Amino acid sequence: MYTESLVKLGKVRSEIREIFEYGNKRKAEIGAENVFDFSIGNPSVPAPKSVNDAIIDLVNNFDSVALHGYTSAQGDAKVRTTIANYINNRFNTEIAPDNIYMTCGAASSLTIVFNAIMQKDDECIVFTPYFPEYGVFLERTGAKLVAVKSEDKTFQVDMKGFEAAINEKTKAVVINSPNNPSGVVYSVETIEKMCDLLRKKEKEYGHPIFLVTDEPYRELVYDDIEVPYLINYYDDTFVCYSYSKALSLPGERIGYIVVSPKMKDAGDAYAAVCGAGRALGYVCASSMYQRVIEKCIDDTADISIYKVNRDLLYNNLTEMGYECVYPDGAFYLFVKAMGDDAHEFCEKAKEHELLLVPADSFGTPGYVRISYCVQTKQIEDALPAFKKLAESYQK
Amino acid sequence: MYTESLVKLGKVRSEIREIFEYGNKRKAEIGAENVFDFSIGNPSVPAPKSVNDAIIDLVNNFDSVALHGYTSAQGDAKVRTTIANYINNRFNTEIAPDNIYMTCGAASSLTIVFNAIMQKDDECIVFTPYFPEYGVFLERTGAKLVAVKSEDKTFQVDMKGFEAAINEKTKAVVINSPNNPSGVVYSVETIEKMCDLLRKKEKEYGHPIFLVTDEPYRELVYDDIEVPYLINYYDDTFVCYSYSKALSLPGERIGYIVVSPKMKDAGDAYAAVCGAGRALGYVCASSMYQRVIEKCIDDTADISIYKVNRDLLYNNLTEMGYECVYPDGAFYLFVKAMGDDAHEFCEKAKEHELLLVPADSFGTPGYVRISYCVQTKQIEDALPAFKKLAESYQK
Repeated sequence: MYTESLVKLGKVRSEIREIFEYGNKRKAEIGAENVFDFSIGNPSVPAPKSVNDAIIDLVNNFDSVALHGYTSAQGDAKVRTTIANYINNRFNTEIAPDNIYMTCGAASSLTIVFNAIMQKDDECIVFTPYFPEYGVFLERTGAKLVAVKSEDKTFQVDMKGFEAAINEKTKAVVINSPNNPSGVVYSVETIEKMCDLLRKKEKEYGHPIFLVTDEPYRELVYDDIEVPYLINYYDDTFVCYSYSKALSLPGERIGYIVVSPKMKDAGDAYAAVCGAGRALGYVCASSMYQRVIEKCIDDTADISIYKVNRDLLYNNLTEMGYECVYPDGAFYLFVKAMGDDAHEFCEKAKEHELLLVPADSFGTPGYVRISYCVQTKQIEDALPAFKKLAESYQK
Repeated sequence: MYTESLVKLGKVRSEIREIFEYGNKRKAEIGAENVFDFSIGNPSVPAPKSVNDAIIDLVNNFDSVALHGYTSAQGDAKVRTTIANYINNRFNTEIAPDNIYMTCGAASSLTIVFNAIMQKDDECIVFTPYFPEYGVFLERTGAKLVAVKSEDKTFQVDMKGFEAAINEKTKAVVINSPNNPSGVVYSVETIEKMCDLLRKKEKEYGHPIFLVTDEPYRELVYDDIEVPYLINYYDDTFVCYSYSKALSLPGERIGYIVVSPKMKDAGDAYAAVCGAGRALGYVCASSMYQRVIEKCIDDTADISIYKVNRDLLYNNLTEMGYECVYPDGAFYLFVKAMGDDAHEFCEKAKEHELLLVPADSFGTPGYVRISYCVQTKQIEDALPAFKKLAESYQK
């Protein structure tokens, strides 16, 4: 009667959400300060002051009918010009405003791109660990998600496994660097190898294999790590960007797609993006928030706090005997579950009031995700609990 | 290579948009005051002051991380409670907050509901004239749009034609009252007849036939006309509401779906809506605008101006010999093209600097849409041009 797969999807509450709800219940029972909730990837740092200043300025000084009125479907032309200039200055690209399509954040960027390029039975490659929603977004297009196992421990791309997974049905490859949940950033060398392979395979199969780069964490990198801008490495690239983490605006749903101007039939690709946005019901991205982005184009939230948190958590947990992936970016620490069963490990962690997320649904059983987008004090207070948890396995 | 139907969709610029662009060009040539643009259905009245006050209050006084943070996917619980209470008080219903799902406006409400209920080869009935995007939204689900011709001149439902169109594949019926582009409002009597027929057909075919009511114009009715609240007339109803016109916030994309609590398997229906929202990439509706709605729940934009415009336009055009549908709601006047060919008529109108929209794409050839969401002065100034246009046919 109702669309079965969607009823199922709507009923399966996400595991992360379940843990989060458990945390709220537990906090009510024993006090918020005694529960160490590391489950949710919600920025803990407020939006920069410039965002709220921009909102107030727009509301007070911008014509109200225009401010809250429709923009063109691809986004306000002035806003897209500002973003194109910003990208070109920063990454030395030649992107035009008409290569940019404003969206309601990364999730909508991805669904729009997937609908634009994926047809029934096409295959889309992702690398473990991967954001489970990729599968949800692909399902409606009839395409298939193909997960390629990453290298043990480093979670860098296993090039042999990658090559073996590509076949004539391969239509797209998703890169998510910095990665949720591993925090891993792909080096220039890795990207170059991947792109060389893809170009070879494009030739072999005689059709494009698109790179879809999911970049909500681009700005969240530490120690001057460079995140290669993929349009400079591979022509058939769609960039899916979001301001959710960069400006701490996850609930406002604002981001964009860049269709590389060097893509084969870039005009058709952009038209397909516009058509997909329209068919999925995205009339335009919030007109006010588009203009907020224009005004705050050079800003980010104060992400220095995430670096403090990362160092504190990584150094201490490693010292306690946890096997951690060193995160160059994002705000997650990816840790091998002691005892190897991540669900068991997370249940045991709960006994110490630690709320962690088993990474099975990310395609990496045996690992857990610890979100460190929290107050630094929570990490400090949680360290004894992490120690006890480790000791319970070391007896 | 790209999804063909979406490339096509992205390339075909909407006819309305074309006329609008022509208008901008023409205004640059001969001055804005000399071009009478009646093409776009964009509210001309600003959002009420309470909206901008609410925004400033939220930005200044609400915790910033929470204000701009994710809400739950179905929308903030407090916001949904406020909306449920408002609906229950106004329409004497028994809607719970968990029957409401916050969306990015009516277009996304419709795509989400269509994905939740329509499967390949299902049929969805609409009545002429109808919003052409219905077809676009349905296409991705694989379902088929079936247009039922409305009664001549009144554009009320032709019950015989409606009955003849229903078959075992009929899964949904869209009602858009007040109607874009005719301005027609369905009476209680019409609604009761339609619902009786649908209940009979549900029994006959042994499966639900859903009523999807597209209500962006609900608040825009004049002379105390009543718009029946469909949940009170038919159990299997999805209400797709938007604040775009009610609060003059079309660019901010905020609205909601109500899943009638009396629907068969209402829990599954709501789950399907949640699943569809997730699969289409709608993570949540703008967290800030959700709270703006909560604060402005009792307000509307000053729609009295639309009534002034309607009366001015309807009375004068009728007097000039135009055959107009009397609009009880929305902000469109639906007029029979003199000479019967709407495209020819609109081209001729251009010679008098009048920009009107041929309604062929609404399923009603021979009619034109005149949007009166404009400054009243524009209508006053345009009357001589309308007169000349009429006279050119009366020679």
